[in-house]
Amino acid sequence: MNFERDNIRKMDGYAAGEQPEDGQTIKLNTNENPYPPSPKVDETIRNLIGADLRRYPPPTALAFRSLAASIHNVEKENIIATRGGDELLRLLLTTFADPADVIAISEPTYSLYKVLAQIQDCQVLSIPLLDGRELPADFAKQANEHKAKLTFVVNPHAPSGHLTSSDKIRELASSLDSILLVDEAYVDFVDPQLGYDCIDMINEFENLIFLRTLSKGYSLAGLRFGYGIGHASLIQPMMDKTRDSYNLDNFSQQIAHAALSDQAYARTNWEKVRQERARLSGLLSQLGLVSQPTETNFLLCQVQQSCGISAENIYRELKEKKVLIRYFNAPGLTEKIRITIGTAEENDQLIQTLREILANH
Amino acid sequence: MNFERDNIRKMDGYAAGEQPEDGQTIKLNTNENPYPPSPKVDETIRNLIGADLRRYPPPTALAFRSLAASIHNVEKENIIATRGGDELLRLLLTTFADPADVIAISEPTYSLYKVLAQIQDCQVLSIPLLDGRELPADFAKQANEHKAKLTFVVNPHAPSGHLTSSDKIRELASSLDSILLVDEAYVDFVDPQLGYDCIDMINEFENLIFLRTLSKGYSLAGLRFGYGIGHASLIQPMMDKTRDSYNLDNFSQQIAHAALSDQAYARTNWEKVRQERARLSGLLSQLGLVSQPTETNFLLCQVQQSCGISAENIYRELKEKKVLIRYFNAPGLTEKIRITIGTAEENDQLIQTLREILANH
Repeated sequence: MNFERDNIRKMDGYAAGEQPEDGQTIKLNTNENPYPPSPKVDETIRNLIGADLRRYPPPTALAFRSLAASIHNVEKENIIATRGGDELLRLLLTTFADPADVIAISEPTYSLYKVLAQIQDCQVLSIPLLDGRELPADFAKQANEHKAKLTFVVNPHAPSGHLTSSDKIRELASSLDSILLVDEAYVDFVDPQLGYDCIDMINEFENLIFLRTLSKGYSLAGLRFGYGIGHASLIQPMMDKTRDSYNLDNFSQQIAHAALSDQAYARTNWEKVRQERARLSGLLSQLGLVSQPTETNFLLCQVQQSCGISAENIYRELKEKKVLIRYFNAPGLTEKIRITIGTAEENDQLIQTLREILANH
Repeated sequence: MNFERDNIRKMDGYAAGEQPEDGQTIKLNTNENPYPPSPKVDETIRNLIGADLRRYPPPTALAFRSLAASIHNVEKENIIATRGGDELLRLLLTTFADPADVIAISEPTYSLYKVLAQIQDCQVLSIPLLDGRELPADFAKQANEHKAKLTFVVNPHAPSGHLTSSDKIRELASSLDSILLVDEAYVDFVDPQLGYDCIDMINEFENLIFLRTLSKGYSLAGLRFGYGIGHASLIQPMMDKTRDSYNLDNFSQQIAHAALSDQAYARTNWEKVRQERARLSGLLSQLGLVSQPTETNFLLCQVQQSCGISAENIYRELKEKKVLIRYFNAPGLTEKIRITIGTAEENDQLIQTLREILANH
């Protein structure tokens, strides 16, 4: 007997990156931050008290939302705190998209969008990017023509690392008939000299919402904490109606607050990642693994034919040697590998291991 | 501009119990456990390490699920770990109920069921209980006639505290065409002498799933951790497809494991709650607040006319005096109040305050 809905029966589910627990693997496959979280997180953890778990947690994460609002110079009514960015994505679908509605995404993009659309039984309009990186000029027009209800754009883009400019984001928000979710999961790693900051556009556009996560920029992938920043009319129904009441536990609210409050530590962390990014990109390129500019904490490398080995086999041989990177068996990505920026030591180990592998081909 | 789906625009959202943060209120309104969690929880908390949050958490909560499986004498494929029981309820809807499908519930029952059904745009069949407590003999027949896809039964029942027998649960599972969710949020407080244990029925019935939570029996409402126990064919699509990947953070998995592993502490806790339940029930009844037998950690009291004050006003006057109980402005409940069993000291304080209030009427 199979009680599943038809759409659920037909779908595959999200394929998460491997999470080895051997403690030995150099793990450069799921874009975790290579450095530990802020010392304020440790301080908060040392003060956690078991008896505080006896009662229900603060239901609306008010302290965290107030802090996030002050950092982004918006009101707390513009902020929803969620269990990772993933919960925000799900809430957008359950709040704003009926079954059979169209969701517009780019191709390629973060693969979870399509999975969440399948769960909500929505149709997916996949609009190919130019060179796998850039939004085509008629992106909004295509979404509008297909009457998209939600448009999901990840910026900087995954898996290419390309940054769409704030002018282009403004143009998208202004021309789209749908809600525009700009998934800024990797925005903390953008070079500050580029002056990218779109948050104040939420005061201009009722259809605009940004996703932020503490998983990458704040070294807290294991905490499951993210937030949305958007027009209050988008935030309110997710806060009051569709999110699970008590979606965030007591401890994670305290820890997330501590991490976000330490902006100085976070900024230093992001700069270190950027420096390693430049160094690693240069070293990989010398080996024939060439990446285009990225504003994230990962590199998408094209494996040159001169390497004499396929992208998939590089992934496999690295894995055998306990270095884990990401390979996507997907259109446009079959000759590429995605490598998360690690610590200097991890990156050196990766290069060393790659040299050994390539020497045998 | 309102982008909400029609069903979301029309609904109100779940009204959670008040969560005062003044630290002074005697809080007997949301059925939290009056005693702190196991000392093993504190031990686990003392060993938490911030750097462990850097990586994604174990994706399937394997350690917790294995422990739960061994405690309930089932396989880990029969267990899904969820962010509170609420996540399991949501997953049942998104996995097994299409919009417009019928969800059968009792009237009254846990008010979240209806809210979750509204989010999924399902129809709700509310079947009145006999005397607000007992399932009518034709409950399954009514659900089947309306082609219900999911039937939600809370046992012991909220808000009455009434326990439906295991024979009756078996009969329900056997006669229902739908999936039967038995929400055992309060089952830990059932008198063990009653011999109620239905879990092994999952091996008999493909349509049967039980909800358990650590919020009540394990004093961890602030942690947001629950689990489902069911036939593997029901568990699998929720595990692999519809739940948020990484639905449970690293720390909560460790803490939940510690709490569940200390069954001796938990059993002692439950017995203490039962003893206070008997004592408090007697004291309240002397004041004209009469409750029928309950197998939960709360009492639903009928306010006798001789009290000279309405249920709602008792709630209000207690609240003014910093004692919080629950009042439901809902059919069949308007002359009742729900009181969570507190510590002996809290219960004494409640009785003392009630005496003062009633003396003035």
